[in-house]
Amino acid sequence: MPKPLNIGMIGYGFMGRAHSNAYAKVSHFFDLEYKPVLKAVCARDAAKAKEFAARWGYESIETDWKKLLERKDIDAVDICTPNNLHKEIAIAAAKAGKMILCEKPLAMDTAEGEEMCQAVEKAGVANIVWYNYRRIPAVTFAKQIIDSGKLGKIFHYRANFLQDWTISADLPQGGAGLWRLDAAAAGSGVTGDLLAHCIDTALWLNGGVKNVTAMTETFIKERTHTATGKKQEVKIDDACAFLCHFDNGSLGLFESTRYARGHKALYTFEINGEKGSLKWDLHDLHRLQWFDYRTEGPLRAWSSIHVTDGDHPYMGKWWVPGLAIGYEHSFVHQVADFLEGLATGKPAGPTFRDALETQKVCDAVLNSAKSGQWVNV
Amino acid sequence: MPKPLNIGMIGYGFMGRAHSNAYAKVSHFFDLEYKPVLKAVCARDAAKAKEFAARWGYESIETDWKKLLERKDIDAVDICTPNNLHKEIAIAAAKAGKMILCEKPLAMDTAEGEEMCQAVEKAGVANIVWYNYRRIPAVTFAKQIIDSGKLGKIFHYRANFLQDWTISADLPQGGAGLWRLDAAAAGSGVTGDLLAHCIDTALWLNGGVKNVTAMTETFIKERTHTATGKKQEVKIDDACAFLCHFDNGSLGLFESTRYARGHKALYTFEINGEKGSLKWDLHDLHRLQWFDYRTEGPLRAWSSIHVTDGDHPYMGKWWVPGLAIGYEHSFVHQVADFLEGLATGKPAGPTFRDALETQKVCDAVLNSAKSGQWVNV
Amino acid sequence: MPKPLNIGMIGYGFMGRAHSNAYAKVSHFFDLEYKPVLKAVCARDAAKAKEFAARWGYESIETDWKKLLERKDIDAVDICTPNNLHKEIAIAAAKAGKMILCEKPLAMDTAEGEEMCQAVEKAGVANIVWYNYRRIPAVTFAKQIIDSGKLGKIFHYRANFLQDWTISADLPQGGAGLWRLDAAAAGSGVTGDLLAHCIDTALWLNGGVKNVTAMTETFIKERTHTATGKKQEVKIDDACAFLCHFDNGSLGLFESTRYARGHKALYTFEINGEKGSLKWDLHDLHRLQWFDYRTEGPLRAWSSIHVTDGDHPYMGKWWVPGLAIGYEHSFVHQVADFLEGLATGKPAGPTFRDALETQKVCDAVLNSAKSGQWVNV
Amino acid sequence: MPKPLNIGMIGYGFMGRAHSNAYAKVSHFFDLEYKPVLKAVCARDAAKAKEFAARWGYESIETDWKKLLERKDIDAVDICTPNNLHKEIAIAAAKAGKMILCEKPLAMDTAEGEEMCQAVEKAGVANIVWYNYRRIPAVTFAKQIIDSGKLGKIFHYRANFLQDWTISADLPQGGAGLWRLDAAAAGSGVTGDLLAHCIDTALWLNGGVKNVTAMTETFIKERTHTATGKKQEVKIDDACAFLCHFDNGSLGLFESTRYARGHKALYTFEINGEKGSLKWDLHDLHRLQWFDYRTEGPLRAWSSIHVTDGDHPYMGKWWVPGLAIGYEHSFVHQVADFLEGLATGKPAGPTFRDALETQKVCDAVLNSAKSGQWVNV
Repeated sequence: MPKPLNIGMIGYGFMGRAHSNAYAKVSHFFDLEYKPVLKAVCARDAAKAKEFAARWGYESIETDWKKLLERKDIDAVDICTPNNLHKEIAIAAAKAGKMILCEKPLAMDTAEGEEMCQAVEKAGVANIVWYNYRRIPAVTFAKQIIDSGKLGKIFHYRANFLQDWTISADLPQGGAGLWRLDAAAAGSGVTGDLLAHCIDTALWLNGGVKNVTAMTETFIKERTHTATGKKQEVKIDDACAFLCHFDNGSLGLFESTRYARGHKALYTFEINGEKGSLKWDLHDLHRLQWFDYRTEGPLRAWSSIHVTDGDHPYMGKWWVPGLAIGYEHSFVHQVADFLEGLATGKPAGPTFRDALETQKVCDAVLNSAKSGQWVNV
Repeated sequence: MPKPLNIGMIGYGFMGRAHSNAYAKVSHFFDLEYKPVLKAVCARDAAKAKEFAARWGYESIETDWKKLLERKDIDAVDICTPNNLHKEIAIAAAKAGKMILCEKPLAMDTAEGEEMCQAVEKAGVANIVWYNYRRIPAVTFAKQIIDSGKLGKIFHYRANFLQDWTISADLPQGGAGLWRLDAAAAGSGVTGDLLAHCIDTALWLNGGVKNVTAMTETFIKERTHTATGKKQEVKIDDACAFLCHFDNGSLGLFESTRYARGHKALYTFEINGEKGSLKWDLHDLHRLQWFDYRTEGPLRAWSSIHVTDGDHPYMGKWWVPGLAIGYEHSFVHQVADFLEGLATGKPAGPTFRDALETQKVCDAVLNSAKSGQWVNV
Repeated sequence: MPKPLNIGMIGYGFMGRAHSNAYAKVSHFFDLEYKPVLKAVCARDAAKAKEFAARWGYESIETDWKKLLERKDIDAVDICTPNNLHKEIAIAAAKAGKMILCEKPLAMDTAEGEEMCQAVEKAGVANIVWYNYRRIPAVTFAKQIIDSGKLGKIFHYRANFLQDWTISADLPQGGAGLWRLDAAAAGSGVTGDLLAHCIDTALWLNGGVKNVTAMTETFIKERTHTATGKKQEVKIDDACAFLCHFDNGSLGLFESTRYARGHKALYTFEINGEKGSLKWDLHDLHRLQWFDYRTEGPLRAWSSIHVTDGDHPYMGKWWVPGLAIGYEHSFVHQVADFLEGLATGKPAGPTFRDALETQKVCDAVLNSAKSGQWVNV
Repeated sequence: MPKPLNIGMIGYGFMGRAHSNAYAKVSHFFDLEYKPVLKAVCARDAAKAKEFAARWGYESIETDWKKLLERKDIDAVDICTPNNLHKEIAIAAAKAGKMILCEKPLAMDTAEGEEMCQAVEKAGVANIVWYNYRRIPAVTFAKQIIDSGKLGKIFHYRANFLQDWTISADLPQGGAGLWRLDAAAAGSGVTGDLLAHCIDTALWLNGGVKNVTAMTETFIKERTHTATGKKQEVKIDDACAFLCHFDNGSLGLFESTRYARGHKALYTFEINGEKGSLKWDLHDLHRLQWFDYRTEGPLRAWSSIHVTDGDHPYMGKWWVPGLAIGYEHSFVHQVADFLEGLATGKPAGPTFRDALETQKVCDAVLNSAKSGQWVNV
């Protein structure tokens, strides 16, 4: 029988649902030493907390996260709040000896992130950040292919994260679902929201970034703020692109926007090495494009691997070849790996410290966009 | 608070998992009057039943399905056994006044199916068959487009279900997972296993089938039977193809095989009408290909709809645009619709009676393949 | 310096252009012993013949094909007339000792075709039929892959040729461009026009066909005939589908229609063998889809070969990797191979005799559609 | 009868073939006032010039381009030499009153290009630069869609030109086919060779570029020079990427490399506007991806227009819907438009002056890569 791991969830929005689903499902499909127990959900609005608890089977609610942290029956805290609250909660949770699963980006900036790292490291608590796309099976498989040396020396890495949901000037900023347009809550726009994902994957697959040159744009300059009802300056970046050098000598190209009409959540990356190349995108997330230079000449081609076989990462736990899983499963995999890490003592990444590297690149990007200069990471 | 609906599951194999997952998840995402409760799982092997119950949270086990049917605390029975047991269990369940959710194909043949229909209709119990592919959002959306008249008069319907998992002559027949190769347990090969799905969708989208001409093939003539350890004749069809006329005057072309190297579970259909066409396949199940003749001339083209928006069928219940769901969700949708049908009194299909129509086409196909004649359905 | 080969072209329609272009271009790109010389074009309408000659550089015109055949300065006759004239012209040309390049299908039926074969064989003149799709580089490459044994034992072959240009009931039958709707000129509808291409490729790639069961349909029963101005029965097949057994034990599925809304000229074939599969379509004619079972497990996938490299068939004669050629080049390749065949004494196919096999399958298909029985080829 | 336009071709390499094919074919398919006559080809090596003339039907040869310019029977000069010769020849040709069709990039740098512009403008001779990709039908169609306003305000433009043919360190620099690796002959590497195409299309579709930040890389630092047989520094850029602002407020992202394993000649562009988006690539050059925000909600999707219909640009001159043309046809179209421009007095672009704008962006890109600063164009 697996041992219970009592979860205290802070927040009940989109990510609260995605994480709760992962906790609820993981033991049905994975054989693990620990089994998550949905102990408590915390939200300022008691009615909403109750409704969320009833739907997902949380045993109790809290309306003050500090109370949650005081509870002895909570092993791990899941932080699903807007970005500006990550630091305070995480540091307090570390002090309270709780394990922490924190939504991305880690913090508002590198300085905050550094404090958070020190807090969890001092407390010695397990910690992880929800850069879930690492655990889409096709992405994990890309990592395995790269690590096996099949690509050889890397020349190029490029990634996009394209959306189109904020094109309308009528969209307000602030409030549930729209706090991402409010710099006070989000810190930045697409850089922290979308490029952070691209950067996390890139650092994981291709190593560190040396320096960057960037540009950002805010297409809609003012939006009504839901808190004040008034038009206020939009201070987040609607779009951001940057060039970079990786430590391994390869060149990087990154772009993100919420103004690419026709793209809903098109996260794409491609990596070109001397002996092979890989390409992936989130819209067809179960496919990995692979070019193998070892193939005999006239048969050389890009192949489209349908990553649904039993010998593909994670897929042996699910259905049978050809049957796809979706977005939500990346969270299940993250929980499974986190629990596996607890059992084996080899923590699953990205830890706070890993995620801090992404934060540093984000900061360099935003600084470069401001200064018009190349900025070292 | 939703009312409990107590489920008794018979079987614990692949479909047992798929259905259990659906019962477990449905209330997290759908707002329904009823909530499934995993009351009991039944399997001849008590140890396996217990293990399955522990994993999925079933409250109890049974080792004799007749015992399960006698229990007062079971509202609905889910039949996930090999095909040759469907009839006996279903008829007994109907007599016991249980609702029935039965795996497909409904029965071993039309005669059995007719008995089953009469049993559930006489007993007045809710009944449904697990032709789950109707509830892949892209397929449901195809149904909506067709019903809205956007295709106009239909000329052609074609469907394939291509797999490659039985090519090796070393694969035995019979036993867990391989009963599908044993005619005694399965009734037929790809016809009942795969073409039945294609036919169910076709009847739903394009109406009844008038007559058929078919061919079948068994490429590997003998396989070791796991029960006897001896080579025995393979009596199922490895491949089956047929031509047909639909009642609406359109022409149909269907093919299924387990010998199409490179295809894991490639169920594809296409329908061509005077004003538009649709195409879908299971390997990229979140996409619907759509050709709209109304588009102005030079812009006319096939479009690839990424069926992940809030205004696409079922998708408003899940994540946000661009984020895919997978195979398992079709079962969740079927449970949701079944429960909705209980609440509204408008039963969700396919009922046993609906599924009997598919059985009739399957029988006509197998008869035509034997006789070499066109056979009326 | 290459030797001249004097061409006499009969017809000036779509195929007259495609062939003339091939004759004009071939020597710019291929190094051959023979060089086509555009000696004469023949058409009943002198003005049109003159205009065509001026545009393409034909040195002279004729208005009576018998006159053309009498000319000593013509080495080879190219027959681009409607199908009902093939036999008479070809037999006369053979008697006149001319080489013959004849449009497909070879004849109105097998009996006519047999006479034509005997005529060319008796006369000992070079002969070829314009089944040009064999010489799309990706198709030729498929042939090489199959012949190398990379697919192993073949299980399945399927082909479609889907168009949508005759859906409107207002389209007349007969006359330039529309003789294909007039059974008197065309013999059959999609069977001779489109399926004949599919069958030629299939016989070439997968060997002979044993028997067939077929269905045909004429969706629009009457169309105005351009010759009479009156509504007349449409006697051609608008759509045709058939199942078959190949001599090698594989199963075949073929379909063609002019009522598949959204498809312009979508000729597709797929072949599944024990060790690999291939797929191709005319809309993206420079790509060959290839599945290689030898690839290590988790990397196994369909690859999309962009058949534009110097080591792909014919491509070394054209541009550089990545740069596509088009439909017209298949005709250039056919001329090149025909001329090469003259030089080496190894005639390029399909000869009249090869094309007669396709005719036999077409006849069996049409007979089966009439009789409702399986018909041996 | 069309009037002859006597062509004098300088160079006989890859581009010499592509242009000669265009001159030979254009009158077979287009109805124009002028018809190109292949009067003379000029190359330093008389034997090679003769061979080329024989193959393509040039009436005469020259071995000194100055002689060619002196000839009264030459109307137009086609410059297909390495880049470092463009200026001298073009200025001399202008002085000799010849029309000029010059390969791209226009010049080694902006200063050279400016001189060339002044020369042709002073002489009043027709002039055009071979940025042929504008005249791929799908690209021309993209221009029509944008000009019709269907995209609305533009937010983003991105383009790549990815190749992989110089990855091997054994490849020398200099000599036929490899002068592109030699900075003395080529001026720059991928910037002038590949990005110049991307920039020409971008300026045509999306207007002027304001400023850029760029990076370049030379992965292989030394290569044997074919002239000296010795290892010499490689001074061209193997890869180049830049960010930019367009005059219309949109953001640009451009990248080119010869180290993207698996990509042969993958020129791709995408443009995102408020009301729609377009995407194209050279590997499947007959397809234009189009997203139309006007489409009713749930049907909104990217469509893949198969640009082969009679109402698509240029396509009415070729075959029938569904039948593709290839790379070479872009040159035929350019000749047709050039000749049409002569007849109508409305010169076809890009003229030297148009091409100078591309040169200015290339220079800004190379300067930014050197200085690490944003550079105004």
